[in-house]
Amino acid sequence: MPSHILSSNIPDIVIGRLPVYLRALTRLAQEGREVTSSHELGQRLGISSAQIRKDLSHFGGFGKQGTGYQIAYLVEQLKQVLKVDQEWDVALVGAGDLGRALAHYRGFGDRGFRIVSMFDNSPDKIGTELENFVIQPLDDLAKVIRERNIKIAMIAVPAESAQEVADRLIEVGVKAILNYAPINLNVPADVHVQYIDPVVHLQRMTYYL
Amino acid sequence: MPSHILSSNIPDIVIGRLPVYLRALTRLAQEGREVTSSHELGQRLGISSAQIRKDLSHFGGFGKQGTGYQIAYLVEQLKQVLKVDQEWDVALVGAGDLGRALAHYRGFGDRGFRIVSMFDNSPDKIGTELENFVIQPLDDLAKVIRERNIKIAMIAVPAESAQEVADRLIEVGVKAILNYAPINLNVPADVHVQYIDPVVHLQRMTYYL
Repeated sequence: MPSHILSSNIPDIVIGRLPVYLRALTRLAQEGREVTSSHELGQRLGISSAQIRKDLSHFGGFGKQGTGYQIAYLVEQLKQVLKVDQEWDVALVGAGDLGRALAHYRGFGDRGFRIVSMFDNSPDKIGTELENFVIQPLDDLAKVIRERNIKIAMIAVPAESAQEVADRLIEVGVKAILNYAPINLNVPADVHVQYIDPVVHLQRMTYYL
Repeated sequence: MPSHILSSNIPDIVIGRLPVYLRALTRLAQEGREVTSSHELGQRLGISSAQIRKDLSHFGGFGKQGTGYQIAYLVEQLKQVLKVDQEWDVALVGAGDLGRALAHYRGFGDRGFRIVSMFDNSPDKIGTELENFVIQPLDDLAKVIRERNIKIAMIAVPAESAQEVADRLIEVGVKAILNYAPINLNVPADVHVQYIDPVVHLQRMTYYL
């Protein structure tokens, strides 16, 4: 990774937009495009081109005035910055409807993530095969995550058990949690949590209706 | 709705936090609690108590110095502000794994939303019963949404068809879209879109690992 990236201290709000830029650029590349502009990206993303230029300038001027951005190069740079130029092993806890939907989701693989183990505590689910792995009992969670040195987990269990699951994950070294349970988690400062709760997104919009 | 709420112009960033406050307060109420403080909320949410006081002050001083916030009252106020003191009909497009998981999701009902119709274009899904509704063909989408005057939709279709589905929804009056497809949508200024893409959330965390 270029040193100017390592050394730069990028605001979290900017980091939050980089995956969206990466997604849009990857799509442009799939469409066979080789060059784009902050203007076109802005149009696609509903973000001002000035904002996009500013965000991308944090990595030391990609894109030359007038000539625009080389998509393939920018994609590579963003993947490096976000550390998804590698594939991360992910543990998935919860094999309900949502857990199974995530297990079947095709969108992880080519974007830096691979679900490698799935856990649940219900006897009728444990042992069943899903995609390319077998649902394991929660009691094996610590052992498996330690052995595979898994740093990222997704929680798709009911709100009541989410904090306990998070505690167990963190105890064995998980540093990033994507939490689908509709509850805020208490975690140490060095653990990152992101939340997905459709109702929070819906309620955020109804205010404007 | 109290006039001071109607008249106040609340920053979007604050609006984005209100559903999280509402969720935490509802949970406190379920735990049998009647009063809370900005300090306790801050602890639960990882937000500074000063920020919380500032956010909630936009609605004209709930919570008195020292005595804290009356949870039930604050919940009612937030529900009014976010307009979820009513139940909104929601259309769900896409009956794949994710769509089915959303259809089965129990978390909508008591938080202001009710999925009332579900659409898909695959013959093997159309007509099948799911929860309390039957999966309808995409061709019926316009008719149904007009008839039921549905304003909110969730898109759970592949990226390739998401924009076309969005266009069809907007054409018949949908004003708020929760998009699960990993693509940004182009919509008119009066249509609100929120995005849920697990990879965007995961990539946002890997930067810090």
